[in-house]
Amino acid sequence: MVNLFWADEGGLPANDRGLAYGDGLFETIRMEGGCGVLLSRHLERLVRDAGRLGIALSRGDLRAICSEASARFAGSFDGGDWVLKLTVTRGAGGRGYRPDSGMKPNLLVSSGALPPMDYPSGVAADFSRVPITVNPLFAGIKSLNRLEQVMAARELDDSLFEVIMSNSEGHLLEGTRTNLLLKTKDGWVTPPRSSLAVAGIMREWVLERLRDRGEQVSERPLMPEDLIGAECLGLYLLNSVLGVVSVRSLAGHDLPVDGGLATICNLLETLE
Amino acid sequence: MVNLFWADEGGLPANDRGLAYGDGLFETIRMEGGCGVLLSRHLERLVRDAGRLGIALSRGDLRAICSEASARFAGSFDGGDWVLKLTVTRGAGGRGYRPDSGMKPNLLVSSGALPPMDYPSGVAADFSRVPITVNPLFAGIKSLNRLEQVMAARELDDSLFEVIMSNSEGHLLEGTRTNLLLKTKDGWVTPPRSSLAVAGIMREWVLERLRDRGEQVSERPLMPEDLIGAECLGLYLLNSVLGVVSVRSLAGHDLPVDGGLATICNLLETLE
Repeated sequence: MVNLFWADEGGLPANDRGLAYGDGLFETIRMEGGCGVLLSRHLERLVRDAGRLGIALSRGDLRAICSEASARFAGSFDGGDWVLKLTVTRGAGGRGYRPDSGMKPNLLVSSGALPPMDYPSGVAADFSRVPITVNPLFAGIKSLNRLEQVMAARELDDSLFEVIMSNSEGHLLEGTRTNLLLKTKDGWVTPPRSSLAVAGIMREWVLERLRDRGEQVSERPLMPEDLIGAECLGLYLLNSVLGVVSVRSLAGHDLPVDGGLATICNLLETLE
Repeated sequence: MVNLFWADEGGLPANDRGLAYGDGLFETIRMEGGCGVLLSRHLERLVRDAGRLGIALSRGDLRAICSEASARFAGSFDGGDWVLKLTVTRGAGGRGYRPDSGMKPNLLVSSGALPPMDYPSGVAADFSRVPITVNPLFAGIKSLNRLEQVMAARELDDSLFEVIMSNSEGHLLEGTRTNLLLKTKDGWVTPPRSSLAVAGIMREWVLERLRDRGEQVSERPLMPEDLIGAECLGLYLLNSVLGVVSVRSLAGHDLPVDGGLATICNLLETLE
């Protein structure tokens, strides 16, 4: 069903379409020893969004490959948490942009260390100067076309955890690697899924849990004044590897950090 | 200055940022034996646009590598024309989207056969259903983020040479691999460079030659009625490998094929 490549044995073929055109998509999964956090959701998203690009994958096969990857990689991380990355491409070759019919996808499996995650008092963020454009055909898909996120991430330094990107209408959509969740006195707010470049797994899970608990959650465009104005009771960055991170400072404005933190921490205890 | 990889010896490292994020750009150059058509312009664009992405390249080094590539590959094509492809990425590694400072770019050099090019009576084209989005920061750059072009190229079949993509305002911008040039009674028209996803080398060269000859050339947005209406005296698709191709049929509408063809053919004789 896929051609399987292990990153510790080498890369994809020179004519792979992932390199040539970003013709593929990826998942990064937090692994606790041999178990993937929210693994089912990651694989579900990967299969669904690959289908949107016309790339056929089997969830069962992917699950088996993840087990194999756990056995292969987990031992390198001393029993601690690590990151499993699955990179799927449409395959190798084709006639320029035009793929051949019946191409077999390539899957590159790699592992990495967990990024540093020690920010008990919250993190600093800023607004990005890199605009984000979302083609409605690809909205939400974690495709390999991520040059905007790369250029925005170049604005980061060690004192800045994230930059928040906005579209041509000035709506704040997401960070380079995180989705946004705002706590207000009227409930939780997050930008609409259909507007997002990447619709994260952690975002989906947190929104579901909040709704399960009867919390008010609305999806609407966010403007800078929503985040740095008096309405903001707390701003959170969501990422399936990093979890939920509280923003204490945005573009030099101090934000409240405890407005929704108890609720979020309580939620995360149920994460499996 | 770059890490050099020959595609006939293997691909890029598994953690290359070109695969991971489309963090790079490419050129495809028509080679006549050992000589590249419009080679200087290709290398100039590559160095300039890499600079826009913060990737430093040296034109002299690239030129030397092209000579080496000619010596290596030209013999495989029986003295006929072929295609040289240069794929540049920011390098391997980094902290997620965020590159490390001082990364060394990777350059993958590959060769390919010329695509079929026998269409004496012009080609058929259609309008694409895939919208194109252009981030102003990357306008014109032949980056590795080409998923839109891939999805549009999936609409092609062997009877259809090209599909023309439009932005959210309904402006026709370009084909998947070609720029547009329209002949009208008031002169030549092409979409503005700043609106384009890819600003082609052949487009640039043809516009310069037309202006040199005192032809009227204007850059303005094109709508479907401009191409299929009575104003159209000829529609041409420009690509540095394929040259200039006349469209005889667009979305089922017959187009005049001889309105500007003599001028274009005359021009191309001066191409070196």
